[in-house]
Amino acid sequence: MTAVSRRSGGRPARQPRRTGRRAGDSGTREAILTSARELFAEHGYDRATIRAIAARAGVDPALVHHFYGTKERLFTTAMQLPIVPSERITAALEGGSREPGETTGEHLVRSALAVWESPGVQGAFMGLLRSALTSERAAAMVREFVTRAVLAPMAGSAGSRDPAASDPQDADFRAALIGSQMLGLAMARYLLKLEPVASAAPDELAAAIGPTIDRYLTGSLGSL
Amino acid sequence: MTAVSRRSGGRPARQPRRTGRRAGDSGTREAILTSARELFAEHGYDRATIRAIAARAGVDPALVHHFYGTKERLFTTAMQLPIVPSERITAALEGGSREPGETTGEHLVRSALAVWESPGVQGAFMGLLRSALTSERAAAMVREFVTRAVLAPMAGSAGSRDPAASDPQDADFRAALIGSQMLGLAMARYLLKLEPVASAAPDELAAAIGPTIDRYLTGSLGSL
Repeated sequence: MTAVSRRSGGRPARQPRRTGRRAGDSGTREAILTSARELFAEHGYDRATIRAIAARAGVDPALVHHFYGTKERLFTTAMQLPIVPSERITAALEGGSREPGETTGEHLVRSALAVWESPGVQGAFMGLLRSALTSERAAAMVREFVTRAVLAPMAGSAGSRDPAASDPQDADFRAALIGSQMLGLAMARYLLKLEPVASAAPDELAAAIGPTIDRYLTGSLGSL
Repeated sequence: MTAVSRRSGGRPARQPRRTGRRAGDSGTREAILTSARELFAEHGYDRATIRAIAARAGVDPALVHHFYGTKERLFTTAMQLPIVPSERITAALEGGSREPGETTGEHLVRSALAVWESPGVQGAFMGLLRSALTSERAAAMVREFVTRAVLAPMAGSAGSRDPAASDPQDADFRAALIGSQMLGLAMARYLLKLEPVASAAPDELAAAIGPTIDRYLTGSLGSL
C-alpha cells in the first residue's frame, strides 16, 4: 500500500489515453499473472511485492491493485490458473488414463508428479508451498484450497474395503494422510532436494509410494 | 546460551573475584557458536569445517571439540535445537522405550511427535524448516544436516527382509522415503494445519503412519 501510493504519487498526473482497451487489458492481466507466478515462486508470498511484480510485468503498481485488489487475490488468481486440482484428482481416481496393473495409489503418485513437473506448474506449485510455509495467512489460504480442491475429492473415494471396519468419519483422516505423504514427497523432491528421492524416476516413486496411498485410501489404518 | 551471553555481556567489565576462567569459557563458547552460525549459513553443513569455525572464533579447533564433541552437536547447539537428532533416532530404532506390540515404524512416529511437541523444540524445528524453504543456501544447509544426522542413521537400519530382494544401494532411498513421510506429517500437522491430522492424537497417527514407515524401512518397495 505504502509503496503503491508512493509510486502513484510520483507518476505523471496524466497519461496518454489508451486505445484498444480490452485487448490491452487482457495482455496486461496475463503479464501480471505471469510475473506474479514467477515472483511468488522465487520469493514466497511475503517477499514478492506488488511493486516487484508490477515492475517485472512492466506496469504501474496501481494497475495491479486496480485489476486484482489485494496481493491475496492476485496470488489465488495466479495460482489457480495453471490447473484445476480437483479435476485432475477426480480423473486420477477414476483412472481414465491408468496403465494396466497400476493401482489407484500408484496412478495418483504418477499423475501428481506429471502435473508438478509439467511446464509452468512447478514454479507455481513451489510458490504456493513456500508461501504456505512462511505466512500464516497464506497457510490458511492454502489449507482451505487444499482441503476443498485436493482432499475433498480424495475423501470421496476413501474408506475401508472391510465393511466391519468402515467408518464414513474416517474419510477426511484418510485424505489428510494422503495429503501428508504427497506434501512430503513434493517437499523432499523439489524444495529440500533430498537424494535419492530428488532424482528418482517417477516410476520408481510411484512403485514405492503408491502402496502407501492405497493403504491410506482403503486399507486398515492400524489397530485403534 | 543466549541468555547466558547476554548476562555476561551486560556485566561490568571488572568484577570482584572474576578469575577469568568461567567468564572466559562463556565468552569463548559464544564466539564459537556465533562463528558456527555464520559459517553453516555461508557454506552449508558439510563444508563448514570445525577448523574454519575455530579459526573465525580465534580459538584452537581442539577447544571446539572439547566443548561440543561432534559437528552435529555444535550445529544443534548453534541452531538452538534442544536435541541431537541422530541420538534420538538411534534410540528410537533400537526401541529402548518401545511399548509392547509396537512396531519400529509406530515407535518412530510416536517418538518424533513427542520430540517435535516438547517445549522449545517446535519453534526451532519450524524455524529451520521455514528458512530451508525460503532460501537456497539454508535449504542446502538443512539438506546436508538432515542427510547426515537423520537419514544416515535410518539408512543403517533399512533394507528388505527378503534376502533375494535385498540391495544395500536402496537403504538411502528407503531413508529418504521415510524422510518424505515424516516431513509431510510435520508440514501437514504444524505448518499447514490440515485437519484432522493437525489435531489427531499421537497414538492415532502412530497407528496410521507407522506401517508406512515399517514398509519403507524393510518392506517391498514395489515391483520394479
